[in-house]
Amino acid sequence: MPASEIQSTSKRASNSVLTLKPPYLIYVGDETRATYAKTGAGIAYWRKDMCLGQFRNDVSAVDFGLPDLTLGEALAQGAGSLVVGTAQIGGGISEALLKVAIEAASNGMDIVAGLHRPLSSIEALAQAAAEGGARIIDVRVPPQDLPIGTGQKRLGKRLLTVGTDCALGKKYTALQIQKDMQARGLKATFRASGQTGIMIAGSGIPIDAVVSDFLVGAAELLSPENDADHWDVIEGQGAIFHPAYAPVSHGLLLGSQPDAIVVCHEAKRTHVSGWPDFELPSIKNVIVKNLELARRVNPNAICVGISVNTSKLPAAEREDYLKSLSDQYDLPCVDPIIDGTSSLIDKLV
Amino acid sequence: MPASEIQSTSKRASNSVLTLKPPYLIYVGDETRATYAKTGAGIAYWRKDMCLGQFRNDVSAVDFGLPDLTLGEALAQGAGSLVVGTAQIGGGISEALLKVAIEAASNGMDIVAGLHRPLSSIEALAQAAAEGGARIIDVRVPPQDLPIGTGQKRLGKRLLTVGTDCALGKKYTALQIQKDMQARGLKATFRASGQTGIMIAGSGIPIDAVVSDFLVGAAELLSPENDADHWDVIEGQGAIFHPAYAPVSHGLLLGSQPDAIVVCHEAKRTHVSGWPDFELPSIKNVIVKNLELARRVNPNAICVGISVNTSKLPAAEREDYLKSLSDQYDLPCVDPIIDGTSSLIDKLV
Repeated sequence: MPASEIQSTSKRASNSVLTLKPPYLIYVGDETRATYAKTGAGIAYWRKDMCLGQFRNDVSAVDFGLPDLTLGEALAQGAGSLVVGTAQIGGGISEALLKVAIEAASNGMDIVAGLHRPLSSIEALAQAAAEGGARIIDVRVPPQDLPIGTGQKRLGKRLLTVGTDCALGKKYTALQIQKDMQARGLKATFRASGQTGIMIAGSGIPIDAVVSDFLVGAAELLSPENDADHWDVIEGQGAIFHPAYAPVSHGLLLGSQPDAIVVCHEAKRTHVSGWPDFELPSIKNVIVKNLELARRVNPNAICVGISVNTSKLPAAEREDYLKSLSDQYDLPCVDPIIDGTSSLIDKLV
Repeated sequence: MPASEIQSTSKRASNSVLTLKPPYLIYVGDETRATYAKTGAGIAYWRKDMCLGQFRNDVSAVDFGLPDLTLGEALAQGAGSLVVGTAQIGGGISEALLKVAIEAASNGMDIVAGLHRPLSSIEALAQAAAEGGARIIDVRVPPQDLPIGTGQKRLGKRLLTVGTDCALGKKYTALQIQKDMQARGLKATFRASGQTGIMIAGSGIPIDAVVSDFLVGAAELLSPENDADHWDVIEGQGAIFHPAYAPVSHGLLLGSQPDAIVVCHEAKRTHVSGWPDFELPSIKNVIVKNLELARRVNPNAICVGISVNTSKLPAAEREDYLKSLSDQYDLPCVDPIIDGTSSLIDKLV
């Protein structure tokens, strides 16, 4: 990438939370495997109203239930961004995607992706974007000029989802809580701290990509001052007892200054995923440790419930499992995707 | 900076702890204020044997007690690096320094600095270094390609200095412990985690500049596997109750997997320096919290002593103060610069 473009990319992101331009055309290409299309599926599930359609090269590709559009149709309907909804093999970008992205960018559509290889490093695409006046947004790249954490309390209420481990439902729990809060007439905003979350929310900061010194400052920026009765529902990252990612969780916790935490867990998980030598901490220890650390910046922090991903449990055991946890901790306990999160919100308000 | 040089800079640092080339010529220039020359003073105090001399433009400039050398004399005596021992106004670089640095680099001397503005961004200097076959080493820039933390225990013993706050003696305590261990015939290496420490040690990783996801992995890399009876004495960063830097401390703690911690404190300090709304935690809480978190990766972690910077205490109160702390915690308690650290090492071995 030429130096001039590094400069412009860094200016683009200067001192701001990433913000995407809707409506989206979700790129699926010829991806037939659902697990490789989770990002697109998440956007279509949670933010259908921001999606104009999906772009598929083949009818056998994953279907998000959105209208199939050609690039020309999407442009005619005012699409703001081409959002890469699939993981690309090797973390790079396929020839088929590159071709579509170049055409979209040269017609002024932003290109949004969270791939390992930054799209902005592809010269032909950067060129097309410059010509079309489009942005190339790598949601893995955090904003520049982040501040140091202040520890100063901001107006507004904040809820943070925390976990016994990574990848067990912190994002989906936060999204469901925000949805249920809004349905109840509460003011609530989902705040995304990871790449898929950012693509769903349309804005956010990829917290785990932030330089350590600025982690708390970035987390403070993520949920800025707001109305006293407004809830920021913040997507957690990592886990406070995780052998590699605990510092990320710690920084997000401090910067979020949560009034409330919800502990997320996956039924049947016994060890840290990918770190088989590490047993999962108990839910009790996760509550205690998160509250101890959070109270340094918000003495009123409390835990309002437990959110369990029960997908690994036989359906017949689900209810007993949740009830037993709820009794043990004297807290509402739900599978948010099945039960919703009303009981957690009752506990809050 | 042209793209070609970004590439070469990133290759230089690829997958390695930064390592400097001695002996050093320490740049003082015309700096007359001791507080702006702390880096140079630290190198001269702790690593006199690695210093060939000092470069001063004026006899009224700060004197580290090293031979005054011209650049020509230093080159003739085989100087490996020009080390910027002063803070530069505005975080940039003065014309006087730039002139010397260009001449040194074009003659093959590495240029080492920890300024806010990376030296490698100065085209004329980059050019001189390329021609002279020299490296420009910004000790604030961490290595590329850092790994994710593994949590796997490594052979060798590790001691980490932790603090009730930042900037109260964690680096000096670690340096003194390593010095005293070596004097006693123990195998010991000082491991630097910050820029001044790196310039003193000649190698290390600026932990607070590492992207959060890789913080634990960087800390693991900093004290690699070693002989079973070898001690890595690791310079701590931040403080576990610090409102902005706690995550940095947490990551360094996990990656260090310390067998022993030493808590550093400054007598009379009551609040977090620069964060006046935050009371300093008690030494007890600092010990408890650090050990709780460290035991996730090393169940045998213990605290072996307290190190106090007593410079703010009247001399007559010093001894009583240390004795009272020692009795309260049943731990050796020293001002390392005055008392040395023998009593802490006794507790270890």
